[in-house]
Amino acid sequence: MKNQLLFVIAFFVLTSINSFSQQALWGAQSIVSPEVRADHTVTFRIQASAADTVQITGDFLPTAKMKTKWGVMDVPGKANLTKDDKGIWTFTTQPLGSDLYSYTVIIDGFKTTDPNNVYLIRDVASVFNVFIVGGGKGDLYQVTKVPHGSVTRRWYDSPGNGTARRMTIYTPAGYENSKEKYPVLYLLHGMGGDEEAWIALGRTSQILDNLIAQGKAKPMIVVMTNGNVAQEAAPGESSLGYTKPGMQMEHTMDGKFEETFPDVIKFIESNYRVKADKADRAIAGLSMGGYHSLHISRYYPNTFDYVGLFSAAIMPDQKATSKVYENIDGTLKTQLKNGYKLYWIGVGKADFLYKNISDYRAKLDGMGMKYTYRESEGGHTWTNWRVYLSEFAPLLFK
Amino acid sequence: MKNQLLFVIAFFVLTSINSFSQQALWGAQSIVSPEVRADHTVTFRIQASAADTVQITGDFLPTAKMKTKWGVMDVPGKANLTKDDKGIWTFTTQPLGSDLYSYTVIIDGFKTTDPNNVYLIRDVASVFNVFIVGGGKGDLYQVTKVPHGSVTRRWYDSPGNGTARRMTIYTPAGYENSKEKYPVLYLLHGMGGDEEAWIALGRTSQILDNLIAQGKAKPMIVVMTNGNVAQEAAPGESSLGYTKPGMQMEHTMDGKFEETFPDVIKFIESNYRVKADKADRAIAGLSMGGYHSLHISRYYPNTFDYVGLFSAAIMPDQKATSKVYENIDGTLKTQLKNGYKLYWIGVGKADFLYKNISDYRAKLDGMGMKYTYRESEGGHTWTNWRVYLSEFAPLLFK
Repeated sequence: MKNQLLFVIAFFVLTSINSFSQQALWGAQSIVSPEVRADHTVTFRIQASAADTVQITGDFLPTAKMKTKWGVMDVPGKANLTKDDKGIWTFTTQPLGSDLYSYTVIIDGFKTTDPNNVYLIRDVASVFNVFIVGGGKGDLYQVTKVPHGSVTRRWYDSPGNGTARRMTIYTPAGYENSKEKYPVLYLLHGMGGDEEAWIALGRTSQILDNLIAQGKAKPMIVVMTNGNVAQEAAPGESSLGYTKPGMQMEHTMDGKFEETFPDVIKFIESNYRVKADKADRAIAGLSMGGYHSLHISRYYPNTFDYVGLFSAAIMPDQKATSKVYENIDGTLKTQLKNGYKLYWIGVGKADFLYKNISDYRAKLDGMGMKYTYRESEGGHTWTNWRVYLSEFAPLLFK
Repeated sequence: MKNQLLFVIAFFVLTSINSFSQQALWGAQSIVSPEVRADHTVTFRIQASAADTVQITGDFLPTAKMKTKWGVMDVPGKANLTKDDKGIWTFTTQPLGSDLYSYTVIIDGFKTTDPNNVYLIRDVASVFNVFIVGGGKGDLYQVTKVPHGSVTRRWYDSPGNGTARRMTIYTPAGYENSKEKYPVLYLLHGMGGDEEAWIALGRTSQILDNLIAQGKAKPMIVVMTNGNVAQEAAPGESSLGYTKPGMQMEHTMDGKFEETFPDVIKFIESNYRVKADKADRAIAGLSMGGYHSLHISRYYPNTFDYVGLFSAAIMPDQKATSKVYENIDGTLKTQLKNGYKLYWIGVGKADFLYKNISDYRAKLDGMGMKYTYRESEGGHTWTNWRVYLSEFAPLLFK
């Protein structure tokens, strides 16, 4: 083996054939998809010469109306790709605003991912491609040349759940080489998510790296738990194997997660260099994670000075019998009396939880419980949750 | 919102429509793919009613012969799925040996992944599905109920490369709560891989967790670097954005990685509780990573007591002018004179590098340089590299 080029060729030919793991490298040299241009248009290219129709669907396309048994709903539109004489299908968008977008590909009705885009994210049991258009808020979601925090997947004992459980922990740049103690944001995912959700779809490490480097947020530790107490960990990361679909939703909103949350705090405060006091603890979450944040923060009413409810579900099932849900108003009053620095509520105008959140705000108003309210466009989407995190984090620990 | 069931339904309907991120959860309830049975047969199911042909290709199917300009080669076979009256295509394998297997799906000639299997791994620029058949060596690749190490993605400064770079670090269970110092295995990926390769495809954390829990391997730190000096980090994790295909192969085998490897060791030894001596350092890698391990271990000939060459590329390009490749024989002799505890060479009988490795063994024999030789079935595959790691790790630091 005297010639590197020959080695490279042989390597790719043979390994691509033996393990079919490298062939896309060659394929990708002629097909770039998606191509994000300087003018913010984006072109998608799919090689599928035998297909009759190729479409994409994504959150950057104009929405369409769909009739469901719950009424007429806005759904992401589809775009038809056009085939050229080489069997390559293409579609180019209008100029897009700066953001992180997601999409899937539909080949003759079969929904799948773009084989030329290795940037895939799993959410619940679904996988899709993503891309970022920079030049605006999307820049906050990019990896940039700033000091980077570390991201660790770590297991902790949860005696309350009788098992070890997995969490994702962001420590800011410099944590390992300082003697400083840091404040902690506990950041909770929504229904169907797990300890991978905020780091993958939420872009937590990129948002925090960038905000901290810009001096807009204080260096902080971010703890992303798994809120599904029936799981140890995300699919494939658990000794339960590939948790059967739907299983992660058992016991998610029945009080068990809230009851056992002190296991999480105890682990963090005895394993990390943190400021273990109310002024240096924040809790926030999206949807079900907002529900968890609401109930954890009032059930342990002298624990968090900062609370963030992002498109939060609000009230428990009437059948939920956990003591966590007894005396909701009383514990809120105690939380109010104990004091806090920020109670932040964000929701999109089109969110299906909008009315519930309005009702909850009316309740808080009636109690004289102050909060900061942020109403955005759009609905119950990661697009909004990334924005909420980007706005909430700079308000913490000031 | 008084009823959790209604919330769950509304959540899934609305979020699946708004962000098309949850719908697979419902879909997956009726379609399980792959289904691994107790008898080790595996059934694949794909819903694609409009397709004319649906196939899978994977490393568990009998190989076929393909004529290429480099000669006739073994390629993974394909299996045709059969359509039922609901438009669901299925295929069931013969009973498979216990292992981790990979596959992709081909719909009317379009290669993609199985939408019902969230267990995807990226290698280079290609994404495929994997599954594990237990009851044998595959058990070592499963997450099991043993103490788990932590896995951290962390950035380090590489002054030799003039940039920050990303690495993946496995610390064994108990590391954080002990005062003990640990030995370190530096584990290097192959061409086209990056700092994600060993942890994803190599199953490093599962193999180490299991071997350590079984008392078969010493607790050790495993450092998985990015060996492509033109990259900062894996695709999507770098400020360079989505590194263009092939870019990661620039400057991979020209001496630069070997020259700047002391940056890695220095970072680890000044940031982790490690035993910083030759007896507690091992270096191993696959293919190009074996090449790097060979050259790093002889160029710094008193640094590693343990060296592992897994299907290693051996000799540099004749045009490579780095001082790293001057005096190869002389530095090997120095390495021999300085002494080492284990020089381990593994290769598959069908590997395209088999002859080169035989030639290298003859050279070592001629020099009286002892090594342990492991010849396996198969070729240049992750199947072999996982086995080599499983056999090599127990020999370290004894």
